Amino acid sequence: MPVVSPDIAHRTAGTREEPGDSLGRLAEAYRRIRRTTERLVEPLAVEDCVIQTMEEVSPVKWHLAHTSWFFETFTLRKFAPSYALYHEGYPYLFNSYYVQAGERHCRDRRGYISRPTVAEVMAFRRHVDEHLLQFIEQADPEVAQKAAPVIELGMQHEQQHQELIMTDIKHVLSVNPLRPVYKAFEGEAGDAAPQTWVPFDAGVYEIGHAGGGFAFDIEGPRHRCFLEDFLLADRPVTNAEFMAFMEDGGYRRSEWWLSMGWATVEERGWTEPFYWERRDGAWWTYTLGGMKPVAPNEPVAHISYFEADAYARWAGARLPTEQEWEVAMSACSPSVEDAHFLEDAPMHPRPARPQGTAGANGSPPAGAAALRQLYGDVWEWTRSQYSPYPGYAPGEGALGEYNGKFMCNQFVLRGGSCVTPRTHIRPTYRNFFYPEATWQFTGFRLARDP
Amino acid sequence: MPVVSPDIAHRTAGTREEPGDSLGRLAEAYRRIRRTTERLVEPLAVEDCVIQTMEEVSPVKWHLAHTSWFFETFTLRKFAPSYALYHEGYPYLFNSYYVQAGERHCRDRRGYISRPTVAEVMAFRRHVDEHLLQFIEQADPEVAQKAAPVIELGMQHEQQHQELIMTDIKHVLSVNPLRPVYKAFEGEAGDAAPQTWVPFDAGVYEIGHAGGGFAFDIEGPRHRCFLEDFLLADRPVTNAEFMAFMEDGGYRRSEWWLSMGWATVEERGWTEPFYWERRDGAWWTYTLGGMKPVAPNEPVAHISYFEADAYARWAGARLPTEQEWEVAMSACSPSVEDAHFLEDAPMHPRPARPQGTAGANGSPPAGAAALRQLYGDVWEWTRSQYSPYPGYAPGEGALGEYNGKFMCNQFVLRGGSCVTPRTHIRPTYRNFFYPEATWQFTGFRLARDP
Amino acid sequence: MPVVSPDIAHRTAGTREEPGDSLGRLAEAYRRIRRTTERLVEPLAVEDCVIQTMEEVSPVKWHLAHTSWFFETFTLRKFAPSYALYHEGYPYLFNSYYVQAGERHCRDRRGYISRPTVAEVMAFRRHVDEHLLQFIEQADPEVAQKAAPVIELGMQHEQQHQELIMTDIKHVLSVNPLRPVYKAFEGEAGDAAPQTWVPFDAGVYEIGHAGGGFAFDIEGPRHRCFLEDFLLADRPVTNAEFMAFMEDGGYRRSEWWLSMGWATVEERGWTEPFYWERRDGAWWTYTLGGMKPVAPNEPVAHISYFEADAYARWAGARLPTEQEWEVAMSACSPSVEDAHFLEDAPMHPRPARPQGTAGANGSPPAGAAALRQLYGDVWEWTRSQYSPYPGYAPGEGALGEYNGKFMCNQFVLRGGSCVTPRTHIRPTYRNFFYPEATWQFTGFRLARDP
Amino acid sequence: MPVVSPDIAHRTAGTREEPGDSLGRLAEAYRRIRRTTERLVEPLAVEDCVIQTMEEVSPVKWHLAHTSWFFETFTLRKFAPSYALYHEGYPYLFNSYYVQAGERHCRDRRGYISRPTVAEVMAFRRHVDEHLLQFIEQADPEVAQKAAPVIELGMQHEQQHQELIMTDIKHVLSVNPLRPVYKAFEGEAGDAAPQTWVPFDAGVYEIGHAGGGFAFDIEGPRHRCFLEDFLLADRPVTNAEFMAFMEDGGYRRSEWWLSMGWATVEERGWTEPFYWERRDGAWWTYTLGGMKPVAPNEPVAHISYFEADAYARWAGARLPTEQEWEVAMSACSPSVEDAHFLEDAPMHPRPARPQGTAGANGSPPAGAAALRQLYGDVWEWTRSQYSPYPGYAPGEGALGEYNGKFMCNQFVLRGGSCVTPRTHIRPTYRNFFYPEATWQFTGFRLARDP
Repeated sequence: MPVVSPDIAHRTAGTREEPGDSLGRLAEAYRRIRRTTERLVEPLAVEDCVIQTMEEVSPVKWHLAHTSWFFETFTLRKFAPSYALYHEGYPYLFNSYYVQAGERHCRDRRGYISRPTVAEVMAFRRHVDEHLLQFIEQADPEVAQKAAPVIELGMQHEQQHQELIMTDIKHVLSVNPLRPVYKAFEGEAGDAAPQTWVPFDAGVYEIGHAGGGFAFDIEGPRHRCFLEDFLLADRPVTNAEFMAFMEDGGYRRSEWWLSMGWATVEERGWTEPFYWERRDGAWWTYTLGGMKPVAPNEPVAHISYFEADAYARWAGARLPTEQEWEVAMSACSPSVEDAHFLEDAPMHPRPARPQGTAGANGSPPAGAAALRQLYGDVWEWTRSQYSPYPGYAPGEGALGEYNGKFMCNQFVLRGGSCVTPRTHIRPTYRNFFYPEATWQFTGFRLARDP
Repeated sequence: MPVVSPDIAHRTAGTREEPGDSLGRLAEAYRRIRRTTERLVEPLAVEDCVIQTMEEVSPVKWHLAHTSWFFETFTLRKFAPSYALYHEGYPYLFNSYYVQAGERHCRDRRGYISRPTVAEVMAFRRHVDEHLLQFIEQADPEVAQKAAPVIELGMQHEQQHQELIMTDIKHVLSVNPLRPVYKAFEGEAGDAAPQTWVPFDAGVYEIGHAGGGFAFDIEGPRHRCFLEDFLLADRPVTNAEFMAFMEDGGYRRSEWWLSMGWATVEERGWTEPFYWERRDGAWWTYTLGGMKPVAPNEPVAHISYFEADAYARWAGARLPTEQEWEVAMSACSPSVEDAHFLEDAPMHPRPARPQGTAGANGSPPAGAAALRQLYGDVWEWTRSQYSPYPGYAPGEGALGEYNGKFMCNQFVLRGGSCVTPRTHIRPTYRNFFYPEATWQFTGFRLARDP
Repeated sequence: MPVVSPDIAHRTAGTREEPGDSLGRLAEAYRRIRRTTERLVEPLAVEDCVIQTMEEVSPVKWHLAHTSWFFETFTLRKFAPSYALYHEGYPYLFNSYYVQAGERHCRDRRGYISRPTVAEVMAFRRHVDEHLLQFIEQADPEVAQKAAPVIELGMQHEQQHQELIMTDIKHVLSVNPLRPVYKAFEGEAGDAAPQTWVPFDAGVYEIGHAGGGFAFDIEGPRHRCFLEDFLLADRPVTNAEFMAFMEDGGYRRSEWWLSMGWATVEERGWTEPFYWERRDGAWWTYTLGGMKPVAPNEPVAHISYFEADAYARWAGARLPTEQEWEVAMSACSPSVEDAHFLEDAPMHPRPARPQGTAGANGSPPAGAAALRQLYGDVWEWTRSQYSPYPGYAPGEGALGEYNGKFMCNQFVLRGGSCVTPRTHIRPTYRNFFYPEATWQFTGFRLARDP
Repeated sequence: MPVVSPDIAHRTAGTREEPGDSLGRLAEAYRRIRRTTERLVEPLAVEDCVIQTMEEVSPVKWHLAHTSWFFETFTLRKFAPSYALYHEGYPYLFNSYYVQAGERHCRDRRGYISRPTVAEVMAFRRHVDEHLLQFIEQADPEVAQKAAPVIELGMQHEQQHQELIMTDIKHVLSVNPLRPVYKAFEGEAGDAAPQTWVPFDAGVYEIGHAGGGFAFDIEGPRHRCFLEDFLLADRPVTNAEFMAFMEDGGYRRSEWWLSMGWATVEERGWTEPFYWERRDGAWWTYTLGGMKPVAPNEPVAHISYFEADAYARWAGARLPTEQEWEVAMSACSPSVEDAHFLEDAPMHPRPARPQGTAGANGSPPAGAAALRQLYGDVWEWTRSQYSPYPGYAPGEGALGEYNGKFMCNQFVLRGGSCVTPRTHIRPTYRNFFYPEATWQFTGFRLARDP
């Protein structure tokens, strides 16, 4: 998953407004994002926030502290001269990957740290919030202008951890035989309409971020690429469709799988999607609302690249490249005017919509009737391995070191999921995970050659 | 470590008193032991009670629940017909090794379980306590007489977990870079008097439990053994003595080590005892009172069998057999009249006492002047691999399955440590651990041939 | 590494000649390739041919048998009705990855099989040769026409195993502390001329195999791609240049490495290229001619993708994409008229040539003066992760299953090495390995953006 | 398994004869033992002698070289001043555990070494033989007297490796799906007579080597021990008896197994003894004569301690201690007058003999009628973990370092197997292996309390 970078060249310089106004809006957005994080953890017990149930999962407590460490390290300690380090042990404990920001505690031992307690971490958050808001209000305008993009980075970063909090707590609760519920919800019944293919023509296209809003360094530079003719499915693959693959021996027949995928199936004993469970002849799945019967009309989720790729081969199709995906979606991207924060996210993939009601946030996009369900329910695997765009250069310093470091053995996912903050979704966004990852809300959409 | 067993043949039948009196005392002892456990966890935060920092360590929360599950399963559900299971998910979560008592949750994933919360576990404890005390008070006398030995077993079992709570929480706090303090204490300064050798004669001796109090099945049957002449040290090896071994290349020279011991040294990179740390040219160690300089006059602790054995070879001596140890100690065993529960245990190994003040609990034993420091500070490794005594037969059923299952690749330790409940210490007690174990308060005493 | 496939659509149908002539040439080529394989193993002792020194390495004996199994299985048993299986145990032992061709012996246990002996395997080879040549000579012309492409596939396959025999035996001999010599050779002294950059213009290019000779399925279909402006180095990076990277802390400073690359450096303790060794302050390397001082002017070899990528970042450059490489090389591809079999291959990377003498086989290509050293010394890592070309579809059946299965976590290499058979080198060839692989003769060439 | 040590105090000094005679006999015995080793490998192909099929197994080539290295290092280089090292690379390659004899090649990589070839190793053997025999003949008598015990040690050591050659080559051939035959043999049909119990009385016994022939240091010193009453089976457990255990769920029911034993069963998926295989509803086993039906009347072999111990518990019995075993066997030890070298060993466990024909070598022992089958077919597991006898002190220097190093996590086996050289069998011999070991010819005999 990408993290923020200081490369702010992607912002459109021309849209700047009066400093005072923009700082006021920044403070307001900061308050709202931080509050959102805290509302996410309200349903949890202290005990839920401490443990780490697999290496990829971090304790909720760690997320709460790490996002605050980010603001303290890259904003307060850098731009606010009078700011004193809150606790000298915290930078070591709450740094994640930023090698250049100093030594850090081992990722796979975050669940071994009982102190600081959750209450102490919340006090740390409040401390950072107070000083950061005070800084925005009182700082010299020139300094504030320099710090503003870094604060915006921190907010984007916090939104990424909001999504991780949700996927991690889902795992934490799921491994408990008591299967606790995060928040009850009701599923929507019904069948999905059949998938249809939408055609796109060969040609030279421009892709990548074009300015006019925040973007990560790896989303640019904008550049040209050549695409041959292709067809793209109008919605992601559903649970019902995936069950047909399973019934046809999907997890037992090697011929559809990548060699490494099949080795993973055998080594881990995969016989169904992650979180699925057989009960009395029916498929159930663990959700943030507890155990539920698998809904046929919902997009299949928690699917690895290997499973998506095998399904596509079984179906006589393939996964799209990230270029194909972006070209198709950019043509019909929804307006995000009414998008909100994660507290408004669905928390569970929504069923495939009836024809004509597409949109990441429910609003029907102009001119995108062909594509019925856009994105915002499950991250969509592409067949593109994660590589730099032509002309890409990573940012400088600790903040720039992150994204380029992972351009190896990862596949690109596009779109966004039911636990992605709504303002964090855009068609140029490049998410990436290793091909066996399943603990995110990951699904896929088919493509094929004409 | 042994656990309780239903083999109560070791109790001396002749010492029975009036049922009413004895049940009253049982209830009183039960209350006191359960209260002791809860007092042990008072200094802890909820977060400390949830995590598992290595496979051998269990979360404190698990210990609190498991000991209650033991009383619920083997007393209430067996002898109290009207008792209803408190929670149907708990037996699976809180069973440990008792295969015959049903399926159980994996030991190495106890730290993945956030629910029930600590508060919910404490409610479970109170529920069990109420019903168990009510049962003792109101049960039919015949039924109560049958249940009484099982309740006593449960109390012995709880005492074992009191020791484990202390050793486990020590590990949990120690891995935190912030090095939290469980309870502050002051060390005692000074040097230890030189070790002297106490001679014992060859002959046929009787060892093993002789009746007259509680004992585990593996402590018997009492039987004869032949010992050649031997000499035993009058106190355990101290930190100062162990440092001399280290300075002579103890951890760098393979010639003193067992082959498997040396492999362990190399694989784990051991260069000093567990919990020790070099700071500015001096040795420090993590204790329940936080980081402290290593005290020269204290018994060395957290020592594996491999280290004890290598030290002994370096010192031109050897470890005693468990038979030698028991024969020597039985001759001078302290009275335990004034012994108390774990809240009175020292929580840290005491320095070697000045001549003439030996005793597990501080009281000078009659006729044991030769052995200056008896036991009760560190468990003492013997060179005896853990095997059954002649004529040993394990008890029946779930409670009997435990002890005999571990007679392989473990060494016997004798005595008791600074976190062993005082009433849980006796000269026939056979503790056992695998030879690389270091997270218990384990030390050793030298022996040699004439 | 790709293997042969039955997709022969890439051959230019128009160039067919008289059947009799072409079958005669096929027989002659078959004889020559098989003889080459056997000449490669002549310097070896029986003992050298049996062992497997790491999972990627196969015993030479296995290569000798497997290539014969390939002809027996896919030609003789399929097209020669009277042919009887040579030994019923061999198909199980000598199948490699071909799941559809039946069960197979574990790859990582090939070194556990002492029988059949080397002599028995050579008898199997002779048996297959006799029957195959007889088949070519006597078969019904129609059947022979069907079998011919499969025989050609088998010959391409055998050439791939010729390269593997050389890289595997290099490893086998290298792990022996006696450091045996495969075949003595003399290095060429001198310094390499400085690298220069050759510019290429942005535009839509065609790449992929265009017909007119053998190619693997994954080399096609030919298709269009868009490239932005780029610069390519006129020769691979040399040992002297790589040593400058090492002296600047190349293996000690994480900032130039991919995250997974740095983890590999730390886990495996890499401090120099594979096969290098420090002796008396100088770098030596194991070669097929024994231990030699590292020659400054030779291309650095046995380099993983991680090392190549880190070097490029250190040098302020990057690796080329496979599209850039192919576009550049296709413009100046050498004629291969005088190319020969592996017995004529150099067996060690040749030094960077003086300006104006480029070519895979030494002949200066027309119009390629700018690119001084083409390919044929070391395989060249590209930054392209191994993916299908647009429109790619794998072949049918056992022979088609191979190449598409590995499109995950592998990087493409282009060119060919000093142990690649000369006729096996062409600009569209797509080799691939996982990024930590070093036991092949792998090097790299720099690229950069204008 | 014990190895030779220089502690020759166990030899009875009084039985010395004239130096010339004794040296002549030494030379003759040396020649014969060395020739035996070479006859053992005659049926093998060169390829069989190179590979290592699991860590415990060494290549036959290594055994041939290592035993010669032993004579070169500890006799020729120490006592023959003019002797020059044969090859400077060999000591590193062919040292095994002797840390004090210098650096050594990793045990688990012995199968990675193709050179020296088998022919070169045989030349090394001949070289050592010539110089050693010349040394015995020509050395100064005083020097020869000093060297003689070390030569005898080397011969004992070579006999141990004769047994290992046979068990290792059995494994090497067994893993080959072609299942090659080492040497054909015919089994003996029939059923075994029922087992009977032989009683022994409680009392103080002397055990350990008493002088009068060669013994390892760990067989002494002779000392007293006290045994309670016990009963010992008159023969080892047979295949038929073990099959009854299997049919009763022996490998499926945890209640009879040690905890670590059951973990081993689950981890390795054990469902039958090592080398057994189910074919068409019957049990077959790999033998040095190839695949054979399991013979009901033969002692069960290739049994781990865990399996032996579980069987005993299932049978309501236990394994004997090594003291019980030695006391019982010493009373009826066969004369070894007519015992010979390994070429006369049976190479496969013989069936339980009819009553009255006991004996390690077939000769009925005087006064041992009660014990029908003594030892010499399978090593017999005892319940004794391998520990030093009272008063044991290891020898000095490299040769003394071995045996005491393994007193941890190993169990003692007594007797000798069908591939133990006949002169290498005696009632005080203490063999030892870790409890999961199965690649030796290991079986067991039951004991029980009255």
